[in-house]
Amino acid sequence: MDITVAIDCMGGDHGPHVTVPSALDYLHSDPEANIILVGIPDAIEAELRAANSELGPRIRLHPASEVVGMDESPAVALRGKKDSSMRVSINLVKTGEAQACISAGNTGALLATSRFVLKTISGVDRPALAVILPTSIGHTYVLDLGANVDCTAEQLFQFGIMGASLVSSVESKAYPSVGLLNIGEEEIKGNEIVKQAAELLRDSGLNFYGNVEGTDIYKGTTDVVVCDGFVGNITLKTSEGLAQMLATYLREEFNRNLLTKIAGVIAMPVINSFKRRVDHRRYNGASFLGLRGIVIKSHGSADKYAFGFAIKRAADEVRGGMLRRISERVAEFSRHPQLPSKEVTR
Amino acid sequence: MDITVAIDCMGGDHGPHVTVPSALDYLHSDPEANIILVGIPDAIEAELRAANSELGPRIRLHPASEVVGMDESPAVALRGKKDSSMRVSINLVKTGEAQACISAGNTGALLATSRFVLKTISGVDRPALAVILPTSIGHTYVLDLGANVDCTAEQLFQFGIMGASLVSSVESKAYPSVGLLNIGEEEIKGNEIVKQAAELLRDSGLNFYGNVEGTDIYKGTTDVVVCDGFVGNITLKTSEGLAQMLATYLREEFNRNLLTKIAGVIAMPVINSFKRRVDHRRYNGASFLGLRGIVIKSHGSADKYAFGFAIKRAADEVRGGMLRRISERVAEFSRHPQLPSKEVTR
Repeated sequence: MDITVAIDCMGGDHGPHVTVPSALDYLHSDPEANIILVGIPDAIEAELRAANSELGPRIRLHPASEVVGMDESPAVALRGKKDSSMRVSINLVKTGEAQACISAGNTGALLATSRFVLKTISGVDRPALAVILPTSIGHTYVLDLGANVDCTAEQLFQFGIMGASLVSSVESKAYPSVGLLNIGEEEIKGNEIVKQAAELLRDSGLNFYGNVEGTDIYKGTTDVVVCDGFVGNITLKTSEGLAQMLATYLREEFNRNLLTKIAGVIAMPVINSFKRRVDHRRYNGASFLGLRGIVIKSHGSADKYAFGFAIKRAADEVRGGMLRRISERVAEFSRHPQLPSKEVTR
Repeated sequence: MDITVAIDCMGGDHGPHVTVPSALDYLHSDPEANIILVGIPDAIEAELRAANSELGPRIRLHPASEVVGMDESPAVALRGKKDSSMRVSINLVKTGEAQACISAGNTGALLATSRFVLKTISGVDRPALAVILPTSIGHTYVLDLGANVDCTAEQLFQFGIMGASLVSSVESKAYPSVGLLNIGEEEIKGNEIVKQAAELLRDSGLNFYGNVEGTDIYKGTTDVVVCDGFVGNITLKTSEGLAQMLATYLREEFNRNLLTKIAGVIAMPVINSFKRRVDHRRYNGASFLGLRGIVIKSHGSADKYAFGFAIKRAADEVRGGMLRRISERVAEFSRHPQLPSKEVTR
């Protein structure tokens, strides 16, 4: 299936130096993909030259004169930089010239701008940010990861619908299981909002597994894990911190003395194979869900390899018909009697 | 310093089979400790005989005829089992016969019973559960870990005071740094309660570092990390799940074929040394803070080695004068003008 994606070439810590070569590599791997490189022409052309490459029928340049800074306020980016590479990329999705866009830029600005330009799907209160995480038995999708700090039960319910739609469009699973992240202490099973969200999910006809605990994320108990953005963001960043600490410990132990260094050389192929398996770059690319267009957020520090996974995620969502699936399922549930319609359609 | 601790011998997945041998080992390692074994006499005496040991001046038995089940409702345990080993252990703290008690029993029942029997310190709304976690540079204390699902800003503030008091009593740090767990997205820096808690902490005279993110826990950015029990519980359990997944991956990689198995044998001492360093058993023993007595919760699945760390934690808190420190600091802040007194003393 022929698709076109727009790439905000200026976003991220490394800008065109990463995004342009990554786009060129992607074109080789996906012969039915077309790419629009968005950004400052001189900077993009310099990277094309450095890669001994040039524009062509499958890769074209769309100029944008401004760049959103990584620490810039979303409000300033939204109001003041109407010709930023980020905004122009999103505009290309709005006009239909591209079916998705990918940016490694500032998350807050990307969220605010894509919400302003694209608007949310009818029936969705607020967009959510979904990531994919490895598990003992495969991988799982977790949302929200920070787009929404305080959530209502209805919003958590919508995250469940959107997460399930995402998985059914990019994986071969018609009825993905959905878990609601909660705590497992005996007396105190979650706060009021989570309890209400569980009731909505239970009555929804989704494949609702029930409450899951923190341990269930990496066990892979469900295909989708729903939580509010505060919990999701902290959970994800705690995981990053723990993984870094364990990697540091392992390196220190292998560097302790001559004997451990020799053991390290012998074990190197195994350690490298382990590292490849947990390489977070393979999970790069968070999806904004609930917008009238596909927007993928790459990690700001992504390298060429990692950025390629974000492009692939965009392509998978386009080909899987994710937008249509979300719209249909949200519309279906908006008609569902147990949901107060004002909450869902406001 | 001579101390006496009460051990709920019947609690946990393994009961006296773990708690009694662990108590005996502890007495050897701490010549100024005395232990009261609480539970069903026959069961405890059988374990003493199996260990070729007997009661003596430093280890005595206090009978209790009932046992709180691991899945029992806290309300049932509290109202229906007045002679449970858990309750009798807490009573010994109340009467002053012991300065602390340790239980591997059901968390909800332990919290409800110790709160009912011991009461909270004047000025503390609700007790919190604090755990110690390893970091890249040492360790950190995190609270609350599940005792309080919905917290007010004042409660988070009290957790900061109690956490700092705990650290200053068991570590050689007079002014431990306190971080408030929050998210780092650009636009959306935390929910309202966390923002208000940050203001209270900033004006408190505590060594308040400011907001910390999930990654900061394992970096060891601060000595204390404060969060509500919902976030804390999920964070801790997600960490457990991730560590288990990584351990499984590593084992699988070393078992892949004959060559990797040989590499595994050669790397074994390094891997074992790594495992010792991250062994969660060394961090066993969560502290209930804010009660008029010291209560330590051991993990239900703790083995003899792990349970010993919970006993040591109790002893450290008694010797460090933790109760007095918490009372003094809470009283100090209750007089502090910026805190609405009704919130603090209700």
